[in-house]
Amino acid sequence: MKKYKVAVIVGSLRKESYNLKTAQTLMSLASDDLAFELIEIGSLPFFNEDLEDKQPQQWIDFREQIQAADAVLFLTPEYNRSIPAALKNALDVGSRPYGQSAWSGKPAAVVSVAIGALGGFGANHHLRQSLTFLNMPAMAQPEAYIGNAGQLFDDQGSMINESTKNFLQGFMDAYEVWVKSLAK
Amino acid sequence: MKKYKVAVIVGSLRKESYNLKTAQTLMSLASDDLAFELIEIGSLPFFNEDLEDKQPQQWIDFREQIQAADAVLFLTPEYNRSIPAALKNALDVGSRPYGQSAWSGKPAAVVSVAIGALGGFGANHHLRQSLTFLNMPAMAQPEAYIGNAGQLFDDQGSMINESTKNFLQGFMDAYEVWVKSLAK
Amino acid sequence: MKKYKVAVIVGSLRKESYNLKTAQTLMSLASDDLAFELIEIGSLPFFNEDLEDKQPQQWIDFREQIQAADAVLFLTPEYNRSIPAALKNALDVGSRPYGQSAWSGKPAAVVSVAIGALGGFGANHHLRQSLTFLNMPAMAQPEAYIGNAGQLFDDQGSMINESTKNFLQGFMDAYEVWVKSLAK
Amino acid sequence: MKKYKVAVIVGSLRKESYNLKTAQTLMSLASDDLAFELIEIGSLPFFNEDLEDKQPQQWIDFREQIQAADAVLFLTPEYNRSIPAALKNALDVGSRPYGQSAWSGKPAAVVSVAIGALGGFGANHHLRQSLTFLNMPAMAQPEAYIGNAGQLFDDQGSMINESTKNFLQGFMDAYEVWVKSLAK
Repeated sequence: MKKYKVAVIVGSLRKESYNLKTAQTLMSLASDDLAFELIEIGSLPFFNEDLEDKQPQQWIDFREQIQAADAVLFLTPEYNRSIPAALKNALDVGSRPYGQSAWSGKPAAVVSVAIGALGGFGANHHLRQSLTFLNMPAMAQPEAYIGNAGQLFDDQGSMINESTKNFLQGFMDAYEVWVKSLAK
Repeated sequence: MKKYKVAVIVGSLRKESYNLKTAQTLMSLASDDLAFELIEIGSLPFFNEDLEDKQPQQWIDFREQIQAADAVLFLTPEYNRSIPAALKNALDVGSRPYGQSAWSGKPAAVVSVAIGALGGFGANHHLRQSLTFLNMPAMAQPEAYIGNAGQLFDDQGSMINESTKNFLQGFMDAYEVWVKSLAK
Repeated sequence: MKKYKVAVIVGSLRKESYNLKTAQTLMSLASDDLAFELIEIGSLPFFNEDLEDKQPQQWIDFREQIQAADAVLFLTPEYNRSIPAALKNALDVGSRPYGQSAWSGKPAAVVSVAIGALGGFGANHHLRQSLTFLNMPAMAQPEAYIGNAGQLFDDQGSMINESTKNFLQGFMDAYEVWVKSLAK
Repeated sequence: MKKYKVAVIVGSLRKESYNLKTAQTLMSLASDDLAFELIEIGSLPFFNEDLEDKQPQQWIDFREQIQAADAVLFLTPEYNRSIPAALKNALDVGSRPYGQSAWSGKPAAVVSVAIGALGGFGANHHLRQSLTFLNMPAMAQPEAYIGNAGQLFDDQGSMINESTKNFLQGFMDAYEVWVKSLAK
């Protein structure tokens, strides 16, 4: 029975990130057919084509982690109506060198998590535009704009909002179908 | 006679960046009423709210450079249909701490420069979405999507394409009017 | 003392449209220096370049109404994460014939009004992308994403939510400054 | 052997539309497993929720045409950096009444065709944002930004540019795989 390896990428670097807590909630709701790995992105040096000849070790390691995955799950906060730099950098580093993108063909889904009511809409769709280029089929529905994130978790980081938890359960069920339909 | 200080931010970190060369061309075409400063963004640590209590010195210096400017001119390549991480990070670092954004109210313009024919359209408009949030009035026309950038410069980095040069002259003239209308 | 003529365009055609009610609230909050005209867009035939030789009278009338304005205020619902067709058609009709756009140079502002919590973010920024092309400087802040619109008005269509009303007052004050800075 | 019914929607209403010609080229390049139907959108009355009780017959017919399809192929010009009103109206009409969208679940692809070099990038991605909401999985790669469309066809409307034709062949092959993977 095939297990699908899912790389989980969280755009916020905060230790108490609501995006991270939402990622952990989502992983806890998935079936055993999905095996998750949280991928660290905060220590990747900025992508710069001039460095491609002597690539930082962190770039090489990151690309290998993505290549090993069957699918990718993205969680992103919204900074200034777009995705955080650390997440954008992960996309850019993983997409290179030219012609050897680690992302290509892997089914993806996007969850945006924000403190405000708008739920990170701007970040969510900016990320989707990049996923198109990266040849990552992005699940359409359910869209996941998780707003008012400050009210969803208890002090231990457990999701305490039942309707959001039910929504995330449905999201994860749909994502599992999506991954199984499209993973290579 | 007031001189307007314009911070110039180039999204690419490459030494031979076409965006940098376009920035230099633009600066050479401006009137004496504008005084430009190229601001370095490649060494800014990733924005992370957890670091706000012990801010990296580079963040502090960068914010002061932006605060000192009357206006900002952005040049951006397109990486994976959006702006580079280094540029997004500059936006995020300059926008914080909460309530003390260095960007607010400064008139801006966007030039995207790309090797391909599409001229960085995706990056150009992603950047504009962030500028809205940052309260930076962005010049509408002329839009500047500079495509086929590999053919525009000689070996010394001088712009050799006359029609692009004329376009950039018109762009800079319009930007000067924009800055004078809106700078505080 | 100059009065500024402001064309008000409401993207929803519903008689009881929350966008229309928000437009009426905004107009009631403006100073006497602004004179508003609500422009009807629901009967404009679809733009089709083949009709340019025998232009529908509605197109001609609409273009004249826009040309007579000093500035434009847009209110838009969100349909399927973008602006309604009727509003897009108004933009397209007003932008033609080629080289004779009625919109060019007029300062603009965007308010999106939606029943859901997301406040029409998608429509708001799609509209802004078009305004860039149309050479309409769009006010950056305050951004106006009016969510939960079903709870804001009484049966007579009066705004009953005080915090939203205060927000709209601030929006209108800022728009007046914007119009006066940039109108020809 | 199942044949897949593909609804083809062309955003331009011009008789000599380059989008229409590109659609015809694409259809001619497909395998026999796909059966195409060009769907007319130019006579759909503007969506207006007030009309839902006495729906125009054109709305009803259009929704039935979409419901009968297994997949949808969109071709769009760019008007003012977004999709044409007629295309947006088709999306909106087909998405209603609430809860009965005709689009949901149908695999889609987007081709933008433009006279200029930018290839309709803005329209392409605005459409994709709507497709996300409409629950239409949109093929990621190949992205299709067909620029300089005025030089691609002969007087009879036949595609005469070999590299574009080859690109469209690859696009159609990929789309067929996409449809077969995801159609219900």
